[in-house]
Amino acid sequence: MIRQLSGIVSESQLVTTDVELEPYGRDWHSYHSGVPPDVVVFPTSTAQVSAILRACNDAGFPVVARGAGTSLEGHTTTPYRGVCVDLSHMDAIVSVRPDDMDATVQAGVRWQDFNKALAPHGLFFAMDPGPGATLGGMAGTGCSGTNAVRYGAMKANVLSLTVVLADGTVVRTGSRARKSTAGYDLTSLFVGSEGTLGVVTELTVKLQHLPQQTAVAVAAFPHIRAASDAVLATMRSGVHMGAVELLDTNMIGAVNAQSGFAYPATPHVFFKFTGSPAKVADDAARVQACIRAHGGLDFQWTPDQAARERLWEARKVALWSAGAMDTSRKVATTDVCVPLSRLPDLMAAMEGRAAASPLKVYAVGHVGDGNVHHFIAFDPDDAGELREAKALNDFLVATAQGMDGTCTGEHGVGVGKVKYLEAEFGGAALDVMRAVKAALDPRGTLNPGKKLPGCAVPAAADAAASAPH
Amino acid sequence: MIRQLSGIVSESQLVTTDVELEPYGRDWHSYHSGVPPDVVVFPTSTAQVSAILRACNDAGFPVVARGAGTSLEGHTTTPYRGVCVDLSHMDAIVSVRPDDMDATVQAGVRWQDFNKALAPHGLFFAMDPGPGATLGGMAGTGCSGTNAVRYGAMKANVLSLTVVLADGTVVRTGSRARKSTAGYDLTSLFVGSEGTLGVVTELTVKLQHLPQQTAVAVAAFPHIRAASDAVLATMRSGVHMGAVELLDTNMIGAVNAQSGFAYPATPHVFFKFTGSPAKVADDAARVQACIRAHGGLDFQWTPDQAARERLWEARKVALWSAGAMDTSRKVATTDVCVPLSRLPDLMAAMEGRAAASPLKVYAVGHVGDGNVHHFIAFDPDDAGELREAKALNDFLVATAQGMDGTCTGEHGVGVGKVKYLEAEFGGAALDVMRAVKAALDPRGTLNPGKKLPGCAVPAAADAAASAPH
Repeated sequence: MIRQLSGIVSESQLVTTDVELEPYGRDWHSYHSGVPPDVVVFPTSTAQVSAILRACNDAGFPVVARGAGTSLEGHTTTPYRGVCVDLSHMDAIVSVRPDDMDATVQAGVRWQDFNKALAPHGLFFAMDPGPGATLGGMAGTGCSGTNAVRYGAMKANVLSLTVVLADGTVVRTGSRARKSTAGYDLTSLFVGSEGTLGVVTELTVKLQHLPQQTAVAVAAFPHIRAASDAVLATMRSGVHMGAVELLDTNMIGAVNAQSGFAYPATPHVFFKFTGSPAKVADDAARVQACIRAHGGLDFQWTPDQAARERLWEARKVALWSAGAMDTSRKVATTDVCVPLSRLPDLMAAMEGRAAASPLKVYAVGHVGDGNVHHFIAFDPDDAGELREAKALNDFLVATAQGMDGTCTGEHGVGVGKVKYLEAEFGGAALDVMRAVKAALDPRGTLNPGKKLPGCAVPAAADAAASAPH
Repeated sequence: MIRQLSGIVSESQLVTTDVELEPYGRDWHSYHSGVPPDVVVFPTSTAQVSAILRACNDAGFPVVARGAGTSLEGHTTTPYRGVCVDLSHMDAIVSVRPDDMDATVQAGVRWQDFNKALAPHGLFFAMDPGPGATLGGMAGTGCSGTNAVRYGAMKANVLSLTVVLADGTVVRTGSRARKSTAGYDLTSLFVGSEGTLGVVTELTVKLQHLPQQTAVAVAAFPHIRAASDAVLATMRSGVHMGAVELLDTNMIGAVNAQSGFAYPATPHVFFKFTGSPAKVADDAARVQACIRAHGGLDFQWTPDQAARERLWEARKVALWSAGAMDTSRKVATTDVCVPLSRLPDLMAAMEGRAAASPLKVYAVGHVGDGNVHHFIAFDPDDAGELREAKALNDFLVATAQGMDGTCTGEHGVGVGKVKYLEAEFGGAALDVMRAVKAALDPRGTLNPGKKLPGCAVPAAADAAASAPH
């Protein structure tokens, strides 16, 4: 296979030594263990990706596409070894069309770099997942972030994709029209499919106007239920929020310690207001009324842009802050999402469960969408702590699914959530998904072991490598 | 088959006489000719739909699902006869959950009835296709309408579906979480699949707040390019419009004649502003600046709610108004959508082409999304006029596709647009769609002849019936 790949890409685009491969075997952001791939290849064009996939598919070799590797559920690990296709060298912004409010980029473009290029046009790309993520990876995972309550998730922000199928076929999933009902919606099928149906090499995405004004306020609450009730009331009031982020007491402690804030040790909600000055003032007045009605202790505007950015940056690095509180432990991330009215019950239930646990749990969430992350600090080498971390996750997922919610709002399935899908969808819906997978990737070449339970693995997969994740 | 169906539903739920079947053979809203089905069945439960589909699939009988039959491209015609499954008796609003801002309805619920039930909660369902359409049909077509520029199209407003597959299997495509990346996005796959992948029996949909304030204004322009340039400038200004509807000179003439208005004979744009009074005032000021900058002749507020509703109703029945201008002719509807900046060129090109045609063409569009409909009045019994109507449609579609647009923004493919898909997607993407179709409906039972070119038809399909559409 390495010989074949050498015929497709140059020597500098191939990595085959153990020391270079080792980092690709780990998931840096989760406790999902792994083994390195046999080879990493850095294509620079869709044509190269096509040739690579055709060769791997013919040989029965597993292919795992990778952007920046910032995903959180082991999406880019290589449990069956094989070929890791690292798309980070395909990082060209192909075209920005301000009047169409869209742009075309290669898969390896990072969202923060993209936004820097868009700012002179008064535009931005609205998704804000973990720092460093690439657009291709964001399409794979179906990411969202703090802005999703305002602009929708990744699926709502992609117009069309260039995708390489398992056998090397290149397809474009749609036009640049902002609406279409022509054909089946392949764009939405590939977005969030985690590289199991095809490898995204190019994306055409919708852009948004930079808001005329952005204002950020922080409200404190006596307990988690009051905070989540206030969020529910805010959403129900009809205010079109820019972002609504809830941090529990432990998370506020971590933000204080790691980012130099001094918030009181109670749950807080960060509100972002965007729009014209008149709209921002009007929205803020309505939100303040909701906060007062739900026992809010305090409501403070961040005075200027620097303070706003510092606060939002602190929110952005919440996961790192939680991890930094106890460097002897790792952090397991969770990601449930429930119908809006169930959020207070979910938060209270998990806080109760966590209080009875020896492990420390931090909560932060995009709660305007009913989406929350709990960070569970644990020692992966301590079997008891590992078991307890998994039990906390199991409890949270079962609680959310019992509320007609989902096991993952935005982090995706990877290897970490595969076991929860049956309970969420039932076997018949999973059979439909497996039928789609088999139709598009009959040999199981693409990202085996991820996204769905019970799919085929390719013939030359290194079964011995697929240790428990 | 009729005997088998009689074992599933009661006698009153079956229609088998020629006189009753005849209306089901026509598409009332297009020039697509057809033949009646062999039988129409009115199920009252998902279980009945399941049993019906299982029986038809086993027997190789075509199944065409139907809501209100208001679609425009022959979606519900029965070119291969078989069984029409009319879901209009499944019209229960199952559950409204105001605090979750979602609701669950059966497929036969009509959107206007639904909105009447939602109003007491201060909520509404944002899609507004043709009057009378059912939620199930709206999911099938992937509709949108005037509000889509503000709330997105149907896909963005459906949380999950209950779908009966060709073999009778019942699946639920997702939870009620407002975001999820669990499994593949089957919801978006079924929405817009026009009953070719499964029959939707129940929908859980997102609801929106009734706007605090709604204001409507009308602007006149000297010519179509000025009007579309003003729309582009409006969208580019960052105003979050409620709706932006462009009517060309012929369309304004029809609205004047049929709805009793007296607008000058020039292109007009109807603007809808929604939100708080402060936001509405602010948006309107910015839009007026765009209108002035692009040679707008006039800008008038509709004074009160009654006038607003009368104006919007006139817009809503534009298709009927065009038809009523010459009752000796039918109206062929078109539905292209292009990137925003190309709209002025598209409108001007089509106006030029129509000026050289003996047929009268009316244009009206959801132009904030780059989506426009041209209504072509023609005599279907006059071969020359039929040919010219088709030529105008061909010209428009080719022009839009040449601008990286789509042959259908919201009306769907039905039988009318099948021929345009190859040019839009290329063969490889169509192969992917056909692979999905074959995986979910291997016998081709569901709505044969629609949505995609080159799919299998079921064994017992009446091939003789499939006359040219």
